[in-house]
Amino acid sequence: MASKFVYMDYNATTPLRPEVKDLMKDALDVYANASSMHESGRRARAEIEKARAQVASLIDASNPQTVFFTSGGSESNNTVFMTMYHLAKKGTRKKIITTAIEHPCVLNSAKYLQDEGFPVVFLPVDADGRIDMERYRKELGPDVLLVSVMAANNEIGTVEDIAEIARLAKENGALVHTDATQAVGKIPVSVKAWNVDYLTMSCHKIYGPKGIGALYIRQGAPIEPLIRGGHQEAGVRAGTYNNLGIIGFGKAAELAKAELDEYREHVGALRNRLRDKIKASIPHVRINGHPEFVLPNTLNVSFPGAEGESILLYLDLAGIQVSTGSACASGSLDPSHVLLATGLGPELAHGSIRFSLGKYTTEEEVDYVAAQLPPIIERLRKMSTVSAEDALTQH
Amino acid sequence: MASKFVYMDYNATTPLRPEVKDLMKDALDVYANASSMHESGRRARAEIEKARAQVASLIDASNPQTVFFTSGGSESNNTVFMTMYHLAKKGTRKKIITTAIEHPCVLNSAKYLQDEGFPVVFLPVDADGRIDMERYRKELGPDVLLVSVMAANNEIGTVEDIAEIARLAKENGALVHTDATQAVGKIPVSVKAWNVDYLTMSCHKIYGPKGIGALYIRQGAPIEPLIRGGHQEAGVRAGTYNNLGIIGFGKAAELAKAELDEYREHVGALRNRLRDKIKASIPHVRINGHPEFVLPNTLNVSFPGAEGESILLYLDLAGIQVSTGSACASGSLDPSHVLLATGLGPELAHGSIRFSLGKYTTEEEVDYVAAQLPPIIERLRKMSTVSAEDALTQH
Repeated sequence: MASKFVYMDYNATTPLRPEVKDLMKDALDVYANASSMHESGRRARAEIEKARAQVASLIDASNPQTVFFTSGGSESNNTVFMTMYHLAKKGTRKKIITTAIEHPCVLNSAKYLQDEGFPVVFLPVDADGRIDMERYRKELGPDVLLVSVMAANNEIGTVEDIAEIARLAKENGALVHTDATQAVGKIPVSVKAWNVDYLTMSCHKIYGPKGIGALYIRQGAPIEPLIRGGHQEAGVRAGTYNNLGIIGFGKAAELAKAELDEYREHVGALRNRLRDKIKASIPHVRINGHPEFVLPNTLNVSFPGAEGESILLYLDLAGIQVSTGSACASGSLDPSHVLLATGLGPELAHGSIRFSLGKYTTEEEVDYVAAQLPPIIERLRKMSTVSAEDALTQH
Repeated sequence: MASKFVYMDYNATTPLRPEVKDLMKDALDVYANASSMHESGRRARAEIEKARAQVASLIDASNPQTVFFTSGGSESNNTVFMTMYHLAKKGTRKKIITTAIEHPCVLNSAKYLQDEGFPVVFLPVDADGRIDMERYRKELGPDVLLVSVMAANNEIGTVEDIAEIARLAKENGALVHTDATQAVGKIPVSVKAWNVDYLTMSCHKIYGPKGIGALYIRQGAPIEPLIRGGHQEAGVRAGTYNNLGIIGFGKAAELAKAELDEYREHVGALRNRLRDKIKASIPHVRINGHPEFVLPNTLNVSFPGAEGESILLYLDLAGIQVSTGSACASGSLDPSHVLLATGLGPELAHGSIRFSLGKYTTEEEVDYVAAQLPPIIERLRKMSTVSAEDALTQH
């Protein structure tokens, strides 16, 4: 193992922050079933309701009862899409509009609806990863049941204009969902300003525990449980409360809200530093994602003529943890569906690395990564049959 | 608050055992995404695979890859039933056989299939809570898709004969599922001996964390993901791995297996002591559940002429934590569907308390509860308009 350890895979997941870790150590003893009527059950329930208010506050929801705890972002997204399945079966609105660059859990849920015979549109995006608004406007109509667009992309960091997307959807009477898993805690997120009906969150992206997430459901918006059973979460989500996860989520949400400006400034400066150093030291690179509407911590770079998984392994040997795209797609040899959607050819898409920085990233770490990269890229390019320049222009 | 604290609600949930708690404190730092290809991701993955083997061993599954992690028992049960929904839509076998005394997450999943037009039979049970085998045999046939019978009941502790139920189902070519949430860690559970296709487990019933469970799926048995998305769990269950929960589950499973005999002896003796003391000191009580085929830790008692929720509140004031039935049904004023199914009238069903003991229960605690109960029951009976004797014979 390398003596150096640099974690730059914060979009895949984040470590627990010490404040959350400390609270969770205490919360290991909050074991009672929060649905139980006795004293210890009621105390566990009070902790959960406190956390619910903290999470609601992070997304600017005035009513904590619009926040429903789930096991994570994937479950939240699936809950929305299965609700649409039930609605589409019964109602006249059957069309789903989503995008080509969603997380696999949205894509695969949408494909399920498509397989069941409902019309689903996967909106194309431009070279920077923003959805084609003209095409979007054309697809809208009285047959649209749901518009689901992610707030920020996990691979390239591009931020979509959810407020405008929701406004147009609402004009057409459609429901609106946004997967804000990567946006929450990194940019301001407001269910009020965005005016969405459903919003997905995950706790492990904001320095809290895994296995816990939430779904915001606007009061009055239709919902069908994905997990049927007991009376928990007002009948929206059955299953014994995950006290430990929920308590950790509350604290992580509270701190993410309090530190948002500081976080953005910190990671933004480091991300730009890394970007500039890479551009200055390595020829023929391409920065993916929108130059302005982008998460402050995310830097996706194509190194034509070098294979992404090889770069990843060489960086790993130097103790640097990055990814080629989504961790959820790991193991697949397909090039990133997100990069392909932005128009990159398979050659470039295969040669891309996502550096995702976080609140614990330091200038020293950035400089270490920037110093390790050039010889790795040079070595890999020498082994390649395709010239970097050609690959870059082919795209 | 009472100075005394006696927890007798172990079927609702259990505290973390110290060995699991200690391990989890260390595992708070195992934060990498177990799907990531880099060193820290691979290390997290190794911990998860270790836990998978520990859980597989607890249920006597020879192949760890037949164990799939979920967010808990409710999700596992829902996954099986939604798989049946997909199969029933396409195939010729459409009938589901389950029982009247299942957990709400099975009952409500089965009702969903019924609402969708598929035939569902809720088998009746006898006075001790065992299913009517004659009726079961009559319902079996070439149209049966799934037989789903819980291994042990959460409210009255009755243990069903899963091996025989599965044998008959298999003769008819049906799939077999058992919700073993309450059985695992309390009685021997063997997917081999029982020959089931699906088995549901939950970690927080065996002194491990909440928010984590598993579904055993026999190799080759059909399965559709409930949560679609990334490649995790061989495509059966999407969502970032809950490292902390899974690691805790593994340890809890390992210890539950090692200590099963000791546990049964310990709680069985205490449960019998409590039962005998209650019978000796309080007239007109009824012990619910099977006298022989019953979980060693569960004692469900009807106190006719006293209202269950009132008993619960008085016991709570004395620091004793029990429940009237399932925590998942708390907040509902309906009498227990389990007790009604065993033939108890609403009056008796309303006057019932579940004492569920655990590995930390002591003789002193049992004697304290046995001493507190008689004056509470006497007081409540004096306030009642129905005589205890009449209520008992009405049933």
